Amino acid sequence: MEKPLDRVDCEIISLLQEDGRISNIEIAKQINVSEGTVRSRLNRLIKNEIIQIVAVSNPIKLGFTLVGHLRISAEPTHIEQVAAQLREIDQLWFIVATTGGHTGIDAEFIAKDLDEFNALILSRINRIQGVTRVETTLTLDFLKRRYDWGTAGPA
Amino acid sequence: MEKPLDRVDCEIISLLQEDGRISNIEIAKQINVSEGTVRSRLNRLIKNEIIQIVAVSNPIKLGFTLVGHLRISAEPTHIEQVAAQLREIDQLWFIVATTGGHTGIDAEFIAKDLDEFNALILSRINRIQGVTRVETTLTLDFLKRRYDWGTAGPA
Amino acid sequence: MEKPLDRVDCEIISLLQEDGRISNIEIAKQINVSEGTVRSRLNRLIKNEIIQIVAVSNPIKLGFTLVGHLRISAEPTHIEQVAAQLREIDQLWFIVATTGGHTGIDAEFIAKDLDEFNALILSRINRIQGVTRVETTLTLDFLKRRYDWGTAGPA
Amino acid sequence: MEKPLDRVDCEIISLLQEDGRISNIEIAKQINVSEGTVRSRLNRLIKNEIIQIVAVSNPIKLGFTLVGHLRISAEPTHIEQVAAQLREIDQLWFIVATTGGHTGIDAEFIAKDLDEFNALILSRINRIQGVTRVETTLTLDFLKRRYDWGTAGPA
Amino acid sequence: MEKPLDRVDCEIISLLQEDGRISNIEIAKQINVSEGTVRSRLNRLIKNEIIQIVAVSNPIKLGFTLVGHLRISAEPTHIEQVAAQLREIDQLWFIVATTGGHTGIDAEFIAKDLDEFNALILSRINRIQGVTRVETTLTLDFLKRRYDWGTAGPA
Amino acid sequence: MEKPLDRVDCEIISLLQEDGRISNIEIAKQINVSEGTVRSRLNRLIKNEIIQIVAVSNPIKLGFTLVGHLRISAEPTHIEQVAAQLREIDQLWFIVATTGGHTGIDAEFIAKDLDEFNALILSRINRIQGVTRVETTLTLDFLKRRYDWGTAGPA
Amino acid sequence: MEKPLDRVDCEIISLLQEDGRISNIEIAKQINVSEGTVRSRLNRLIKNEIIQIVAVSNPIKLGFTLVGHLRISAEPTHIEQVAAQLREIDQLWFIVATTGGHTGIDAEFIAKDLDEFNALILSRINRIQGVTRVETTLTLDFLKRRYDWGTAGPA
Amino acid sequence: MEKPLDRVDCEIISLLQEDGRISNIEIAKQINVSEGTVRSRLNRLIKNEIIQIVAVSNPIKLGFTLVGHLRISAEPTHIEQVAAQLREIDQLWFIVATTGGHTGIDAEFIAKDLDEFNALILSRINRIQGVTRVETTLTLDFLKRRYDWGTAGPA
Repeated sequence: MEKPLDRVDCEIISLLQEDGRISNIEIAKQINVSEGTVRSRLNRLIKNEIIQIVAVSNPIKLGFTLVGHLRISAEPTHIEQVAAQLREIDQLWFIVATTGGHTGIDAEFIAKDLDEFNALILSRINRIQGVTRVETTLTLDFLKRRYDWGTAGPA
Repeated sequence: MEKPLDRVDCEIISLLQEDGRISNIEIAKQINVSEGTVRSRLNRLIKNEIIQIVAVSNPIKLGFTLVGHLRISAEPTHIEQVAAQLREIDQLWFIVATTGGHTGIDAEFIAKDLDEFNALILSRINRIQGVTRVETTLTLDFLKRRYDWGTAGPA
Repeated sequence: MEKPLDRVDCEIISLLQEDGRISNIEIAKQINVSEGTVRSRLNRLIKNEIIQIVAVSNPIKLGFTLVGHLRISAEPTHIEQVAAQLREIDQLWFIVATTGGHTGIDAEFIAKDLDEFNALILSRINRIQGVTRVETTLTLDFLKRRYDWGTAGPA
Repeated sequence: MEKPLDRVDCEIISLLQEDGRISNIEIAKQINVSEGTVRSRLNRLIKNEIIQIVAVSNPIKLGFTLVGHLRISAEPTHIEQVAAQLREIDQLWFIVATTGGHTGIDAEFIAKDLDEFNALILSRINRIQGVTRVETTLTLDFLKRRYDWGTAGPA
Repeated sequence: MEKPLDRVDCEIISLLQEDGRISNIEIAKQINVSEGTVRSRLNRLIKNEIIQIVAVSNPIKLGFTLVGHLRISAEPTHIEQVAAQLREIDQLWFIVATTGGHTGIDAEFIAKDLDEFNALILSRINRIQGVTRVETTLTLDFLKRRYDWGTAGPA
Repeated sequence: MEKPLDRVDCEIISLLQEDGRISNIEIAKQINVSEGTVRSRLNRLIKNEIIQIVAVSNPIKLGFTLVGHLRISAEPTHIEQVAAQLREIDQLWFIVATTGGHTGIDAEFIAKDLDEFNALILSRINRIQGVTRVETTLTLDFLKRRYDWGTAGPA
Repeated sequence: MEKPLDRVDCEIISLLQEDGRISNIEIAKQINVSEGTVRSRLNRLIKNEIIQIVAVSNPIKLGFTLVGHLRISAEPTHIEQVAAQLREIDQLWFIVATTGGHTGIDAEFIAKDLDEFNALILSRINRIQGVTRVETTLTLDFLKRRYDWGTAGPA
Repeated sequence: MEKPLDRVDCEIISLLQEDGRISNIEIAKQINVSEGTVRSRLNRLIKNEIIQIVAVSNPIKLGFTLVGHLRISAEPTHIEQVAAQLREIDQLWFIVATTGGHTGIDAEFIAKDLDEFNALILSRINRIQGVTRVETTLTLDFLKRRYDWGTAGPA
């Protein structure tokens, strides 16, 4: 089991949520620890998949024509196999197991054009054994995207 | 209007989608341009909100208890005012205008505990004039989160 | 009130449903009436909006990126005013009053790109007083388009 | 692969979308090309199923009593076989693969009377292996039917 | 308040549910009471709207083209006024207040043709203040119609 | 095939829709035909299941506690076998094949008490092979029940 | 079969619905019977599962983070086996067979944290053969909980 | 703010969840504290609405004919006033604010007969200003009712 986050972890995360390119030296100075501590903590946070530091982009501005959200229902006993196959699909970049009005798998997709989108739905997702229903919601516009949530506090 | 992305922009974006902490020098070397070019391009990409370079985290691992997706319906003539007020709410970190099975606003939320979630739904969102319906989907588990889409190619 | 269709009308319509560019002379010969009769009947059929003779096209092949079907709900007492305003929108080329799982207005749309589609939904349809709900279905592929129904027979 | 549409193709299509019976000579004169060019372009546009030139009719005025839209759901892995069988049914004149609130097949139908409609639903569509759900929307009235979309512009 | 049904009432009702034209004398003989008793009981059962004795017909066989079921939703505070206006519409012959997946008013309709049906939906029901939604289910075929329920027994 | 209804049939039906106990002599007098004609027509109308003359009752006043409407979905390929089994169930007195928001079977039910209703749903309908979904709507109150539709006119 | 409740049973129940810790002596005094009668009646009421006398608690105040309602659909022919397996799950404390907008099984759940809830949905309920759909409704706040219904009166 | 529950509170609650009539002396003995401690803790637990000790009954066995669950939607801005009025209705004994497939108010109801149920829906709930929709689910059978959850552990 992973060690719970402490105050130093939380402070490092908060700074990087604001600016992913802040240097280790600058982080060390702001939170009053050594640069080596920052470096080792950062490595651990990334290795344990607590955080990723990446360029997050607006896919519409990158030229993707069809961007949106899929709500995928599956036979409840097949949901893990369906999830495994969905993870292999490049156009699906964000996949979560969900419950609420339906219990299933939600995914975010991007497609360069209608041909790619058509193939995604009809040739990839529809052909996965156990999928029973696919609901598509198109993104018309991005209104807010912030990643500086902070943390729910040190354990 | 913004200048369309060219090959250099696209290559810089792709490298940063893989690793947000790669240095400008390393980018310059890999795509065979000067470090000054990388720096100025990067500034423009960030300023124009094409990309953000940030720590993207798994909110469940950061200690948030309730994480998920809201589908918010509003009176069609009030949708912009509703969107403006939703943008002010800290627990909503990703907001998009959408169409599909319903036309409205989808949002991702995080809450530290049931009290914070309760307040989000009953005291914030329900009180916005023009909201007609809120549907909540809880995240049970994160199955995939990748940001290295590349781009849909230089214009 | 319009005169009911007779056998000659029905035969002319059937031939034109197969080939809209068949000449009046050819029609006259095939159904054994004079060319003048064909001409006058054809004028009347078009004037009374029984038929239109036009190039019907596959919008995806013409370069439209987003093509599909809208299901628009409106306050029942406002449905005629809503219909009148929808008719003014160029991107909606086919509009019908419908009943079934919902009672409202169904429309077919075409859009050149996401900007035009976004404007159609958010700036045009959503702003019509009385619209309560819009549901979008995207066309992935055309599987059949035939207009040679014949008629339900002379009255 | 098909050659993309050029300016001449687009202008021919636009004229024929307004009036399907305009003569080749008249088209040639209006867009300043030879009649031979019009003829060969027109043949190609029709052969490649870019356009059909036909009489498009109001089925209610032709005496069809029941006219409307079907939303057909199928087991995702059977959707192509279902589509193939639906294409064989004369009363379905327009069939598309769709996604949105549901992913499946939408079709437009016409029926002369309740007996024909009854047979269409119960004896044809319901008996196709893989169909899971059929939703019927009746057309009460045609409010707009225009085919002069133009094109999304030469490639 | 009405007197509860006794054994004699129940036996009279059961016989008439089987055959509405059985004579009073025959009823009297079968249940062993005087003809005068049958007559007075029958009058009371009809006057108190416990039963109607009528020809119940298959509307499709009587030539009605469109026959079916409407599910009408109304603003909850207006439901009585809506019901009062629906009762005035000749094409609605059976109207009940209901609850379940929706709470509202269900009605059975008959229409001679599409024009009459169109007027029923668009010109009558849609114009009633307080109606929010109308859902139509068409009858394709009658599979069973029996009225000989008997009674739930004398009180 | 049955002979279409003529003017005499229609007049007889209309009188009996108002009062199922009007005597043949009275009908004969009112529509100016012989009593023998009335008798033979009436026999034929009943034998051909055009009409039934019966006591139609308000089941709530007869002591039935749970009265309402079922919407039964079935696998499309099993719908006829499902219908055959539903017809055997006494508590279902009115069964129709339907299409609209769903395509399936609608039925009216009556039950003396919760035990009988429970058995109807859980022990009878749920156990029919091919049934996929049952939706129940309870009747709260009868607002109108009229059977004097007349006919859609002689053929 | 159980003996129907009499007046004494009903009075005992009413008192205990208000206060489950009222002594037998106090009950006896208030309803004017002997303490032995109270004791024997109470034993019978509990043994026949007419009542349970227990501490009913607010699970949110007891520290459960996720509390709510599940609507579970199952293949109609498997519903009893599904119910039997659901009864074995500790987190489901209230399970009923239901009908209405859907016919299936409704259950109340409690979970200490997201891990336990995740396991409940994905590892327990989803793996029961015959379950087709799970819908989750979260409790945000308890607004009323009263158990002093009295009874519907002695039989 | 309330003091968090400690180990003694949790042990007292667990014993009373099993048997609400266990004596204070018996509790004291089992968890090894004084009877006075049990008494004062119990008073506090009840006063703070952590627990109620009551007879919980099976309403069907108590003679209630109609028992079930209501899902009540309201205009989001009126939800508190709606909740306040619902709390006044005796037939609603359990009311919670909820979110999921819909956000609103869920309530459990009991009614002695159809008249009382009819009045509950049509004369009480439907007349509350702000209610937009009521969905009723009937209970057919109780399959499990346990209150011995324990607690989520001392804080």
